[in-house]
Amino acid sequence: MSSKLRILPLGGLGEIGKNMTIFEYEDSILIVDAGVMFPENDMLGVDLIIPDYKYLMDKRDKVLAVLVTHGHEDHLGALPHLMQDIQAPIYATPLTAGLIEAKLRRSKLPHDIELVVFNAGDVLDFGPFTVEPFHVTHSIPDGVGFGITTPVGLIVHTGDYKFDHTPVDEWPPDFAKLSEFSMRGVLALLADSTNADRPGWTPSEKIVGEGLEKVFQEAPGRIIIATFASLISRIHLVADAAVKYGRRLAITGRSMRDNTKIASKLGYLDIPDDLLIDISEADNYPANQVVIMATGAQGEPSAVLGRLARGRHQRFSIKEGDTVVFSAHTIPGNEEMVHRTINQLFQRGANVLYEQVADVHVSGHASQEEMKLLINLVRPQFLIPVHGELRHLRQHAKLAKEIGFPENNIAVIENGTPVELDEISMTVLPRLPGGYVFVDGSGVGDIGWPVMREREKLANNGFFMAVAVTNGQGNVLGKPNFVTQGMVDRKEAEELFIGAEDTIARVVKNSVGAKEKIENRLEDAVSRYLYAETGKRPFVRIIVNQVIGEPVAA
Amino acid sequence: MSSKLRILPLGGLGEIGKNMTIFEYEDSILIVDAGVMFPENDMLGVDLIIPDYKYLMDKRDKVLAVLVTHGHEDHLGALPHLMQDIQAPIYATPLTAGLIEAKLRRSKLPHDIELVVFNAGDVLDFGPFTVEPFHVTHSIPDGVGFGITTPVGLIVHTGDYKFDHTPVDEWPPDFAKLSEFSMRGVLALLADSTNADRPGWTPSEKIVGEGLEKVFQEAPGRIIIATFASLISRIHLVADAAVKYGRRLAITGRSMRDNTKIASKLGYLDIPDDLLIDISEADNYPANQVVIMATGAQGEPSAVLGRLARGRHQRFSIKEGDTVVFSAHTIPGNEEMVHRTINQLFQRGANVLYEQVADVHVSGHASQEEMKLLINLVRPQFLIPVHGELRHLRQHAKLAKEIGFPENNIAVIENGTPVELDEISMTVLPRLPGGYVFVDGSGVGDIGWPVMREREKLANNGFFMAVAVTNGQGNVLGKPNFVTQGMVDRKEAEELFIGAEDTIARVVKNSVGAKEKIENRLEDAVSRYLYAETGKRPFVRIIVNQVIGEPVAA
Repeated sequence: MSSKLRILPLGGLGEIGKNMTIFEYEDSILIVDAGVMFPENDMLGVDLIIPDYKYLMDKRDKVLAVLVTHGHEDHLGALPHLMQDIQAPIYATPLTAGLIEAKLRRSKLPHDIELVVFNAGDVLDFGPFTVEPFHVTHSIPDGVGFGITTPVGLIVHTGDYKFDHTPVDEWPPDFAKLSEFSMRGVLALLADSTNADRPGWTPSEKIVGEGLEKVFQEAPGRIIIATFASLISRIHLVADAAVKYGRRLAITGRSMRDNTKIASKLGYLDIPDDLLIDISEADNYPANQVVIMATGAQGEPSAVLGRLARGRHQRFSIKEGDTVVFSAHTIPGNEEMVHRTINQLFQRGANVLYEQVADVHVSGHASQEEMKLLINLVRPQFLIPVHGELRHLRQHAKLAKEIGFPENNIAVIENGTPVELDEISMTVLPRLPGGYVFVDGSGVGDIGWPVMREREKLANNGFFMAVAVTNGQGNVLGKPNFVTQGMVDRKEAEELFIGAEDTIARVVKNSVGAKEKIENRLEDAVSRYLYAETGKRPFVRIIVNQVIGEPVAA
Repeated sequence: MSSKLRILPLGGLGEIGKNMTIFEYEDSILIVDAGVMFPENDMLGVDLIIPDYKYLMDKRDKVLAVLVTHGHEDHLGALPHLMQDIQAPIYATPLTAGLIEAKLRRSKLPHDIELVVFNAGDVLDFGPFTVEPFHVTHSIPDGVGFGITTPVGLIVHTGDYKFDHTPVDEWPPDFAKLSEFSMRGVLALLADSTNADRPGWTPSEKIVGEGLEKVFQEAPGRIIIATFASLISRIHLVADAAVKYGRRLAITGRSMRDNTKIASKLGYLDIPDDLLIDISEADNYPANQVVIMATGAQGEPSAVLGRLARGRHQRFSIKEGDTVVFSAHTIPGNEEMVHRTINQLFQRGANVLYEQVADVHVSGHASQEEMKLLINLVRPQFLIPVHGELRHLRQHAKLAKEIGFPENNIAVIENGTPVELDEISMTVLPRLPGGYVFVDGSGVGDIGWPVMREREKLANNGFFMAVAVTNGQGNVLGKPNFVTQGMVDRKEAEELFIGAEDTIARVVKNSVGAKEKIENRLEDAVSRYLYAETGKRPFVRIIVNQVIGEPVAA
């Protein structure tokens, strides 16, 4: 019996195969993407989440290449971590490679990494695999999907895509290549499911261009447009509108400026030199001749827009007559921060436009009609919905069934679930253990859910600690030291210290025995006291130091 | 010069005048509503938020009545707090009064509270005020707005409303009363702005009835419908469908069962006795003859649906073929938990229907066309948008301007901003200090943003503490005690203790002087050590007990 192709989606949190997909045939492995996820609100203190790729660890020398679909963090952000463990070269299109290069430079990896630039339409050979990148449209230019010819058949992986006939860079998706794959015969299609619950066809980025033009026509004063730092197409649209309506453009936020530089250098953005000004120069121009691009569309308090909303930007402040545009979709979980930022901007006198009230954003992902078209264009034997949460994958599968795709030929899988393919069949294997890895400070994987539960308890109730010195004979020597954080305001804390001191003295008086036993008894008593006084249940720890002799007066 | 009427909206967080509004004329005060808000994700550990009504505290004996518009928590949940400070009677319609009675009974207030039941259409006199409650439609039956005739003119306050021509209880809004107010002449209109950024007309609850009937027709097995405990109209619809399609109904979750009982007793729900079963009996019936109503539509892990999704319900579990319906709008901030719950239910084999993929929920608030109709029906001289965040109030004002309402006659205000009216003019006064009050455990107002910031730091990095006994001569006696929570996993913590012990010994050796000085030096050194090892910045506290003599061996 011949060997099988194994496909293994990995990644953080709910989204499946978003951050990394492994293609393995015998002794050869290709990795597609290595991205990060951002923590949800209950993942306290976590900086980033990276895919748990321990599956690769004893197969490291089999990895032939890491192929990157496009320049977004959720597809390349984990490269600095992955490349510490993997020696293979990275392949990417010019813009994506430019962004990767900047990222790797910042992360100071111990060894040199080979970064190979390819273009959509190239043919790349890696052992048993032949990879044909094809152009797709998305919210960043130069994105690709991959046709991967393997010994068992041709696999098509879309990456993030939408079918935009009028993208800002005037480079529509490569329908012809998809049709060509289709004629050759496609064994399996891995397709973006992000918007599987959205009916219709995702509007073109052109709609946003028109929406922004309307803003430029109507705004009486300065315009401030917030979006993702990586949304190069949006920067493109704003620069075009600035030229057309005679406004100078200031780009703020380090990441947005860096990305603009890289995209300009590589020819993906063409911004006239005299268009750009520094934000500190903005006040030198009449208000209706200025437009500012800023980060912070997700309500991040430390980003430019967050600081403007709170009046905390050093060189610029919002004033009456400004128009602020949120040109981004609010990522679930960020709604409260975004709404708060919008309200604060209104308080400062700005008019604020956002997705619900103006055409200032469109999704970068395909909706239901595009997903149907893709399936019928590519005509795969098997469908593996990816990118999106399980609920999106199910909707994607439902959609495929509705257009006649055989249910048994669809695999709705989760991260860590391997799928095996031969020329005629697809098998879903049991899910592998593992999931995602928290990055917290410099620690990678040094915290898990037990620490998260401790953090949750501390976040909800704080802690209360006391250190008492006793003579081991039922007497507390001197005053106990108290420490509390996150429980009550300072003034009430002082009152609780007095009551807790009495409680400690009473328990110590009635206790003999081992230090640990007395400490446990003290912790019970103090916890009860605190609950009775405040209704709160902080983490309580009492330490007893038994000494022979006398404490030094504090 | 004659006296003025003062209107003061109060309330928690972003929404203006949602939770409480004060109407004050000379020595007479009416309060409309006394509700709570639920904390946002960064308000760590907070249970509830209540309006800061300290404005009332030296005017307590001027309060003539507390009028409640309808039976939702954000309009009556703060009554147990307010009624500790206020002696006035509460006025409400029968269903609202039933819910208030249950709430007050649970909260065991020190004094008797007079609860007066009125009906829409009644006329109530309170000193200089004459109050005419009028029927409105919302997502709970028996809601009212108030026409309040004051010495300066007639004020109309809508409460939460939508214009539903086909509500479940077949009691449409009282357009005639609004028209009659209009003909009498309305000085000011306080109107619900919640959906001011939604175009069109909010669909009738009837649409949900049709959507649910479709679910009943198509579901092959059991149906589980999750919604708010207070959404009595939804319970009504489900009970009707259960009768029609021959399914038994189990209502789970204490609050939903309590509300159902109260509404049934008062005649707002008419559920046949033999329809209801206990959830433990559900398995005695064929799967396609069972429907279960549950709390937890916001993804709350401890609610019934949350426990079902995690396989943690004692008497019931989700199985292949079940259909789960989220018949509720996801409140901003809850998206992550809701999505996680949906994914978990899919994992357990259920089909899950939610707002985006099926007609299983409609809003209880008016959309733009209803808001325009209201203004033109009531034809007030002045408009005060309320209920909603500042951004909604601005949209409401914009909408009013679009239909020709004079901009200068609209007051977009915030919580704590008093508006004064006489017969011909409206004045917005400077905002009063204060805002909202956190309820945390049994503490009301005992925590504020300083404690919240401590909690945030603890939530992000945890804490690290050590207690060392020294002889005051540069020697640590015995081993220090270490306590850490929320920082790193147990195993890594043990390693950090060893390094921290060395750090402490080194610093103590080189330090003489006061205990506090040495402690500060130790905290700096240990913080640096921990950051170097982990990249994390926990709260660090080191306590030194200097003793003369010897510690007792632990």
